[in-house]
Amino acid sequence: MTVQKIAVLGGGLIGASWAALFLSRGHTVAIADPKPEAEAFCRQLIRNAWPDLAQLSDIPDVPDWSRLSFHATIAAACARADLAQDCGPDRIDIKQAMLAEAETTLPSQALFASSTSSLMASDIQAGAKHPDRVLVAHPMNPPHLVPLVELVGGKATAPEALGRARAFYDSLDRVTVVAQKERPGHIANRLTSALYREAVNIVAEGIADVADVDRAIAYGPGMRWALMGPHLIYHMGGGPGGYRHYLEHLGPTQVDRWQDLGTPELTPALIDRMVAELDASLSGVDAEALRQKRDAALVALARLKQDLPV
Amino acid sequence: MTVQKIAVLGGGLIGASWAALFLSRGHTVAIADPKPEAEAFCRQLIRNAWPDLAQLSDIPDVPDWSRLSFHATIAAACARADLAQDCGPDRIDIKQAMLAEAETTLPSQALFASSTSSLMASDIQAGAKHPDRVLVAHPMNPPHLVPLVELVGGKATAPEALGRARAFYDSLDRVTVVAQKERPGHIANRLTSALYREAVNIVAEGIADVADVDRAIAYGPGMRWALMGPHLIYHMGGGPGGYRHYLEHLGPTQVDRWQDLGTPELTPALIDRMVAELDASLSGVDAEALRQKRDAALVALARLKQDLPV
Repeated sequence: MTVQKIAVLGGGLIGASWAALFLSRGHTVAIADPKPEAEAFCRQLIRNAWPDLAQLSDIPDVPDWSRLSFHATIAAACARADLAQDCGPDRIDIKQAMLAEAETTLPSQALFASSTSSLMASDIQAGAKHPDRVLVAHPMNPPHLVPLVELVGGKATAPEALGRARAFYDSLDRVTVVAQKERPGHIANRLTSALYREAVNIVAEGIADVADVDRAIAYGPGMRWALMGPHLIYHMGGGPGGYRHYLEHLGPTQVDRWQDLGTPELTPALIDRMVAELDASLSGVDAEALRQKRDAALVALARLKQDLPV
Repeated sequence: MTVQKIAVLGGGLIGASWAALFLSRGHTVAIADPKPEAEAFCRQLIRNAWPDLAQLSDIPDVPDWSRLSFHATIAAACARADLAQDCGPDRIDIKQAMLAEAETTLPSQALFASSTSSLMASDIQAGAKHPDRVLVAHPMNPPHLVPLVELVGGKATAPEALGRARAFYDSLDRVTVVAQKERPGHIANRLTSALYREAVNIVAEGIADVADVDRAIAYGPGMRWALMGPHLIYHMGGGPGGYRHYLEHLGPTQVDRWQDLGTPELTPALIDRMVAELDASLSGVDAEALRQKRDAALVALARLKQDLPV
């Protein structure tokens, strides 16, 4: 079964970004959102995203708006869809209700893929008519620019459904990884949480302020992480002996350092301090201009990674 | 006092990369290394680095080799130097001995800056004749391409010396941050260790293999970390309410996730598995070609950050 029509459930930032990507690859997209203003928001985001998408792959000059429709209900959007991309709020009761409504019209072979960053497919699919086609397909924000899609099946997910999902996202030039276990944060957000915990701890302990922590990442190890992950970095740092040499000789220094890392408490006082430090570092910076610069830089970085895959 | 002549103590990867950077900015560089093969190694690295450096700033077409000299002893290299950049082994007894020898010829006003990633300035300067001019100036590898330099003073370091060091590295277009406390890993390597701990834990717990962890970083959050640090990322993810909104509404989900992160034991069996998975993912990849691609991508990324500073 090939994916042609996609129902996007939720017309917020994530849903609109997915919709732009799907539309750019020739799919028919039906967005479900009860809020009337969602349509204008999505159309504007798709218009803004189009030139960026055009830099990353060969797409039509303009969106084929005839392939895009808006619906007040999930049931209406899911009719005749091959895949439903859930972009609703991350609450299990809401997700289960969304899935239940989707199943009233979604063809039995269609996939139900949730963008959830915090819920488990096993919990979402509990009580479903066809739990076997329910899975997590978690993107990083914004999905049309950051290639990673994490796939996670639940206890009742069919391997065949996971395989079809992987083939679909791969067909959009996404980089898919499959988590072998359902755990909070899947894979990527476990890693971001681990980094963030120490980023907060360094401020809490007075080692550096918010702006210096951020600069230390973005002008230091963050530049390497845009190109390769930590395992490969340490392999290359291991010299001719590679990763084994690194682990056997410098692994113990990592373990020592782990002992000194902290788990800060997010107290109101610490929150106040971090917000004040961050705001001070952004004084005079326009939020929308910053977002545009970030997206332009992400597009340039994604192109760089296409040209120079490490 | 302006820095003109720099003694680079140790002609390995880090020393040679620093030497290339210093030379490209018109400084006179004296490299000290007892190994006769260090000279050929450094000259080759400088030759290779030159075109990359030329892409990042306005430098002479070719290195001025007359400004570069090699010395078998630290004392010889440090004569008349304005700054000694220590790139020796990370062992406190060796560092103290290197500093003691440097002080036999280093002018009293010259700085002694250690590239150490694991030692403390307070320990290095203990027993020095002029402890006030001793500090840590820690780069990320390779220093000529990654801009971050972390400065850390010890108990006896003069604020004036830290200030002079900062002005010097800033003059090379480095991005300097000053750690306010001496702690293992300074700032950046605390953050890399925090990320790495969970990168290992995810493999240890069977959530994903080495290659998928690395892909999840390099095609996901790593792309954002090349542009901005985690505090700013969450600020931008907080919508109109910014960082305060994020921390007050989603901070608790971070804290929950922190509870589920692990501290793996680097057992021989886990080391074997990680090495095997990494080697399998690199089968057929030439190590030198990979290094060249990494450096080319780092240069392109550094240029991108110059053109599109976020």
